[in-house]
Amino acid sequence: MTILKSIPKTELILASASPRRQAILAQLGLPFRAVESGADESLVDIIPLEAPRILAERKALSVSKLYPLESVLGYDTLVFLDGQALGKPSDAADAERMLMSLCGRWHEVRTGFALAQNSQMLVSGVECTRVLFRPFTKAEVDDYIAWGEPFDKAGAYGIQGQGARFVQAIEGCYYNVVGLPIAKTLDALKVLSET
Amino acid sequence: MTILKSIPKTELILASASPRRQAILAQLGLPFRAVESGADESLVDIIPLEAPRILAERKALSVSKLYPLESVLGYDTLVFLDGQALGKPSDAADAERMLMSLCGRWHEVRTGFALAQNSQMLVSGVECTRVLFRPFTKAEVDDYIAWGEPFDKAGAYGIQGQGARFVQAIEGCYYNVVGLPIAKTLDALKVLSET
Repeated sequence: MTILKSIPKTELILASASPRRQAILAQLGLPFRAVESGADESLVDIIPLEAPRILAERKALSVSKLYPLESVLGYDTLVFLDGQALGKPSDAADAERMLMSLCGRWHEVRTGFALAQNSQMLVSGVECTRVLFRPFTKAEVDDYIAWGEPFDKAGAYGIQGQGARFVQAIEGCYYNVVGLPIAKTLDALKVLSET
Repeated sequence: MTILKSIPKTELILASASPRRQAILAQLGLPFRAVESGADESLVDIIPLEAPRILAERKALSVSKLYPLESVLGYDTLVFLDGQALGKPSDAADAERMLMSLCGRWHEVRTGFALAQNSQMLVSGVECTRVLFRPFTKAEVDDYIAWGEPFDKAGAYGIQGQGARFVQAIEGCYYNVVGLPIAKTLDALKVLSET
């Protein structure tokens, strides 16, 4: 693929164990391998809106330290409602509370992205996509939760799964909602061909 | 799933051979079977903006005639640039021309949807999603065409495949771009529980 000829002179590592992120990178035809970062994901003293970028940088840097010759991509996704961050739900009641709070309203999905090499940050930033949920019933939500999909997902839903039923419209990058902003990633990788 | 309990009293048929549409309906957890419609897809004397709805109705009705006891969903997707319809490309040169015309610009994806029963239309309409392509090179386009993805797709790209690399942002329903608007489909199916 032409896009590849012009990009990675080094091997590419995705600092993520997420099968969804792996599937998106694979969909682009980019050769890479995935390494779980094990980075500290605690958010003490971090402004919530900054958290996705900071966590993405932590993940990329922690893997870059282990693989100094490779280029490492890190990501972190959070859902924001009225400026409040929604992470992964702790249990079914938490998932129900999150999903009902999103019902019939717009919210924001922010994915931080970071590209590191030799323990240095080359690029980082955040991509924001707005998502509108259609009106739905508590019974639909409970049914969705019983299906088991919400528990490993920020905001308690997966737009790429049965959670698609809740989504009326989005504004911005769809893949950013899934967890890996494609256009921002391609832009970031251009840096590798310029160095 | 609760949503199912409240909907189809009849069997559901998808009047489409498209694996993408089948995958989206399956993703929603709706039980259905797929039947290729064989409907006339010619567009003589049809206003282009009306074509997706009219073709969706034709597909649903043609299958409904064969299966009068079932509920039949039909869809048709077209890409519009400056009011001109882009169908499936006829060859590589046509695909290149289409994709370069979309470069760095917004276009519209319109999917017509139709629900028929016993040869009667119950609901039909059209869902529109705006799509912004990022700036890209002719080499990237030629590379994408060589990959073989454009040829069975309106507008010569698949947002759910490698064509995702061209998409910077969308406004509206993502799944409408793939070929089956989810929220509109769920709304249409509510009619079945009301009859």
